[in-house]
Amino acid sequence: MAGIETLRKWRRDLHEVPECDFDLPQTLAYVKEQLEPMAARCDCMSVFSPARSTVCAFFDRGGSAATALRTDMDALPVREETGAPYSSRHDGRMHACGHDGHMAMALGACDWMASNPDRLARSVLVVFQPAEETTGGARQVCQSGVFERLGVDRIFGFHLWPDLPSACVATRSGALLAASNETTVEFRGRASHIAKSRQGRDALLAACMFVPEAYRFMDERSQEEPCLLKFGHMEAGEVRNQIAASARVEGSLRTFSAEMGRRCRDELPRIAKEVATEVGCTAETTFSEGYPPVVNDENVTSWAREVLSKAGIDVHDVPEPLLIAEDFSWYQQWLPGTFFLLGTGTGTPLHASTFDFDESILMRGVEVYRRLVTAPL
Amino acid sequence: MAGIETLRKWRRDLHEVPECDFDLPQTLAYVKEQLEPMAARCDCMSVFSPARSTVCAFFDRGGSAATALRTDMDALPVREETGAPYSSRHDGRMHACGHDGHMAMALGACDWMASNPDRLARSVLVVFQPAEETTGGARQVCQSGVFERLGVDRIFGFHLWPDLPSACVATRSGALLAASNETTVEFRGRASHIAKSRQGRDALLAACMFVPEAYRFMDERSQEEPCLLKFGHMEAGEVRNQIAASARVEGSLRTFSAEMGRRCRDELPRIAKEVATEVGCTAETTFSEGYPPVVNDENVTSWAREVLSKAGIDVHDVPEPLLIAEDFSWYQQWLPGTFFLLGTGTGTPLHASTFDFDESILMRGVEVYRRLVTAPL
Repeated sequence: MAGIETLRKWRRDLHEVPECDFDLPQTLAYVKEQLEPMAARCDCMSVFSPARSTVCAFFDRGGSAATALRTDMDALPVREETGAPYSSRHDGRMHACGHDGHMAMALGACDWMASNPDRLARSVLVVFQPAEETTGGARQVCQSGVFERLGVDRIFGFHLWPDLPSACVATRSGALLAASNETTVEFRGRASHIAKSRQGRDALLAACMFVPEAYRFMDERSQEEPCLLKFGHMEAGEVRNQIAASARVEGSLRTFSAEMGRRCRDELPRIAKEVATEVGCTAETTFSEGYPPVVNDENVTSWAREVLSKAGIDVHDVPEPLLIAEDFSWYQQWLPGTFFLLGTGTGTPLHASTFDFDESILMRGVEVYRRLVTAPL
Repeated sequence: MAGIETLRKWRRDLHEVPECDFDLPQTLAYVKEQLEPMAARCDCMSVFSPARSTVCAFFDRGGSAATALRTDMDALPVREETGAPYSSRHDGRMHACGHDGHMAMALGACDWMASNPDRLARSVLVVFQPAEETTGGARQVCQSGVFERLGVDRIFGFHLWPDLPSACVATRSGALLAASNETTVEFRGRASHIAKSRQGRDALLAACMFVPEAYRFMDERSQEEPCLLKFGHMEAGEVRNQIAASARVEGSLRTFSAEMGRRCRDELPRIAKEVATEVGCTAETTFSEGYPPVVNDENVTSWAREVLSKAGIDVHDVPEPLLIAEDFSWYQQWLPGTFFLLGTGTGTPLHASTFDFDESILMRGVEVYRRLVTAPL
């Protein structure tokens, strides 16, 4: 099994060359360069690309069923401020979400499987996917037909998690992470000099009235089940002495059930229109298609808990769903699966320009993968 | 007296070379070029500059008292969209506020006075000032001491006014135009991922809560006397999925009495702080020094009304103070004076990129000036 030095080297090499979205030439080259020598020493291992900017390693143990492991490869448009010697060499981009660590764990699992193919309980597909942070690269992997072709019937994945103690593994059965819809409301009014404000229709005011009203609606909804809408960006008008003809409010909606998602996407545009009408404006609300919620399969999750527990790995329970979104959810539309969180113990938030972690935790991730692919079903 | 062709030529020549603030080389050169031949034919006329980017013509009729006429010369940072053959040749700048017309009327008055110096009831100072739209060029003219030196004891000026019928002259005794204070409120909060919004302090929400609250306060105040606060520009946060750490709301406060001005400048920062505190943010409100209100002197205004009425010029009454600001107000801190509005009859608002007018109305302005400088006090 790859030791901590190897995992650290993989992670740091990848950390230095962050790339975004589907545009991952250096990352893809690096991952393939690590996988190919493994495949060279393991008869049952093959490396291939089922979809754009995607690499898979398949360990073929015969039989019609396989288990998938998944890592994401893309970075964020964040300017690194860790000051680490292995800092990003790509200006304005950074692995601020730990995907470099996720890749190192997946490479660690591949390395171990390439050395111990006889220990595998069944075939294993390891997916290195693009565009988790942007358009959901997971979806194209699902649509490629690779799972059906290889008989994949369950999938596992990880996300580093700063709020959990170092190397702590955690998950929960059912809803773990939220469905996310980017939410944009555009108010249209009419400009006028402020001295003639009665001739104008104040889109800035409409937007200001809407935000607290939308939050009131969401507060009521969240009494029923967890959900969230927050607006992080707003722009209205052009100059101080002219009534704003337009205002734009940008936020993100997070829900866990399809029913609540539908209800919010129905009601929020109505609230925006009502508020806008009060001040003579119009409102148009748009929701991005977004990611579904990450919902862990009950059977797969309890099986995984048992396997890990027998191996002496406590899987902590996440007490309530978390409001972030992850495109692992797309896989769970295709296959039952379980998404795990792995504590970094640092508290430094995901997406922060100072995000970093001690690579020793990655050993725990590889061990979890190893237990999951060797345990008989 | 200069005919309509001359007035039109002056106005259109100046319209083609709009310049802003104090930076008026072509405008100043043009104005001097017109004034100097007038001075050459009139012994009592001199042309001089009492302050930066300012030109004055003085008609010295002896005695210790003089009347001033005033025009502004600066243009606006507006991209012209009239399609007129005499459109601005200075990209992104435009005489969208009619100062080109004001200058043509002042030149017309100078031209007439240079030809009829014996008809003047007393000495006359014509002030061509910069920076009306920006920092109040009027103030530096006052501070130059030119009024004291020449014994100026009253001043008159004009603004073209789109909402009045063509060539209609109007004013009111007392408050005519508002005091103006640029008002900026900065809210500071704390950023966090929206999924952890409880860790953040939402400056966007604070700003949204503040605007309607401030408007409620001003609505109540305007029951007592005319006043206005509107915010035309707002920016909050950076990205949709992060609680906004800062929000900025920009507007303008218009008041007529010193007491109401003071009250608004005291109370609005308190309201901003209270609202901000509710959501754990801070607020800082700043007011620019701004222009005082344009308040017409009762005696001078009734004298002018009588003079003009005898000459067959009806001066219409402006029923209530107007909420725009003008730096003519600075002169009225030094001297009693009357500011007139002159209708363009077009309805196309001041500051609009399509602002234009038929120059025939300028004849009326010159005639008003002529009556005011020839009538005995």
